[in-house]
Amino acid sequence: MVKTVRVQVPPSASNLIEAAKEASKKAYAPYSNNKVGASVLTENNKIYTGSNIENASYSLTICAERTAIFNAVLDGQRKIDILVVYDEKTIYPCGACLQVLSEFSDNPLIILADKKGVVFYRLKDLLPKPFTHFSKT
Amino acid sequence: MVKTVRVQVPPSASNLIEAAKEASKKAYAPYSNNKVGASVLTENNKIYTGSNIENASYSLTICAERTAIFNAVLDGQRKIDILVVYDEKTIYPCGACLQVLSEFSDNPLIILADKKGVVFYRLKDLLPKPFTHFSKT
Amino acid sequence: MVKTVRVQVPPSASNLIEAAKEASKKAYAPYSNNKVGASVLTENNKIYTGSNIENASYSLTICAERTAIFNAVLDGQRKIDILVVYDEKTIYPCGACLQVLSEFSDNPLIILADKKGVVFYRLKDLLPKPFTHFSKT
Amino acid sequence: MVKTVRVQVPPSASNLIEAAKEASKKAYAPYSNNKVGASVLTENNKIYTGSNIENASYSLTICAERTAIFNAVLDGQRKIDILVVYDEKTIYPCGACLQVLSEFSDNPLIILADKKGVVFYRLKDLLPKPFTHFSKT
Repeated sequence: MVKTVRVQVPPSASNLIEAAKEASKKAYAPYSNNKVGASVLTENNKIYTGSNIENASYSLTICAERTAIFNAVLDGQRKIDILVVYDEKTIYPCGACLQVLSEFSDNPLIILADKKGVVFYRLKDLLPKPFTHFSKT
Repeated sequence: MVKTVRVQVPPSASNLIEAAKEASKKAYAPYSNNKVGASVLTENNKIYTGSNIENASYSLTICAERTAIFNAVLDGQRKIDILVVYDEKTIYPCGACLQVLSEFSDNPLIILADKKGVVFYRLKDLLPKPFTHFSKT
Repeated sequence: MVKTVRVQVPPSASNLIEAAKEASKKAYAPYSNNKVGASVLTENNKIYTGSNIENASYSLTICAERTAIFNAVLDGQRKIDILVVYDEKTIYPCGACLQVLSEFSDNPLIILADKKGVVFYRLKDLLPKPFTHFSKT
Repeated sequence: MVKTVRVQVPPSASNLIEAAKEASKKAYAPYSNNKVGASVLTENNKIYTGSNIENASYSLTICAERTAIFNAVLDGQRKIDILVVYDEKTIYPCGACLQVLSEFSDNPLIILADKKGVVFYRLKDLLPKPFTHFSKT
């Protein structure tokens, strides 16, 4: 059973959440009409944002979480400490985004934010066993 | 913390595991050289198999788990009860495959098999909160 | 400029087109409501079919063309001679599907079929220069 | 047959090519060991860059071309005029990247650059008929 993890919200969290909310306005979502924003905080306290970008061929759509992570990685970052996802109603990151997050983090905080508030998780709450090339039970 | 779920192995499980092992031989994996097989059992006890199929453009690769699920869906199945993944060493399904599995199941059994034995999970152990369009905390 | 390629339709083409049309009925397309079917003929004259299978996370959707190709590959086929795509109105395969097709073919015939008729192309008409690891201009 | 399109190289092209080359150094490519860079010029003359970012689950890899396009779109851009791809040896964009490019352009210039020089194409040379929801022959 997944429990909400109660943590001390880092001082930067309110900025991060605001950044994710702002990023949602940049979404390109003509097919689903659901605009999602995301932001990440890296280990050296830099913030990067992303939003979903859809495609006529649905399979080539990319989620907000991944565009935010990609932006961090493109800037040379390799370690993400916090991921924020913002939507009008709380949504969970899809499995693909969680897998990508696992490539660049240990057990980051995940903050799901919507109009009414936030919920906290750790990556291991949502994808405890990501695929790795040498995973062992 | 994820615990191994102890369950009564369905009578068909040994066939299913064998089917996943056989399917691994069909893999097209010239880039990773890692051949993975998968099988699924649907609610009406039909078995479908799959293997990984890679692409020069890595992003267009598809995993064994998803090809097995797709085969079931293409045959009109909409409910998967068991997913088996076979590799020489135990691997966990990636987040993308778990997300796709969630679309066609409630909380299926997931059997990770390798040369030496098997481990059991439930989907909720590995992806407790898949993305859905109307998910609520 | 792309010209329609005029070819002798292989004797098996009408069966292939019918197979693609039938496959479209198996599509899982609750998000786009667009059901697409596909079929492939391999070099040894075997037919495989596929349809689009969508996902709540659009990026994990798979197209009809790819599920048909995957089915052939899973059965040990490595060379596709014809791909048929069926939709109510003519659609072109997306770039991702063309790239996957290029992995398992030389310059296959592509037949786009709809309610009213068919159009023929060759892969090189639609994706003349697929990505390869060692491509050279 | 695809012919190289001879065009007047825009004044900004040398900067763009340099930007793509620089971006290739930011690639995260531990699985293929092939670092690719890309840059785009938007209709209002802004430059954005990207590089490939791979994943243990190959299917979740993203190409340099797409991360560059996503960066432009995330900044509110919706129209790309030039895409540059840089690799040590010339590579062609994969079909998936061409499809994504088609969503945000009419018939942009595509510049393939490597250590030795550049080659020019138009999108319609490489993906003349992208998938669209209402495409008609």
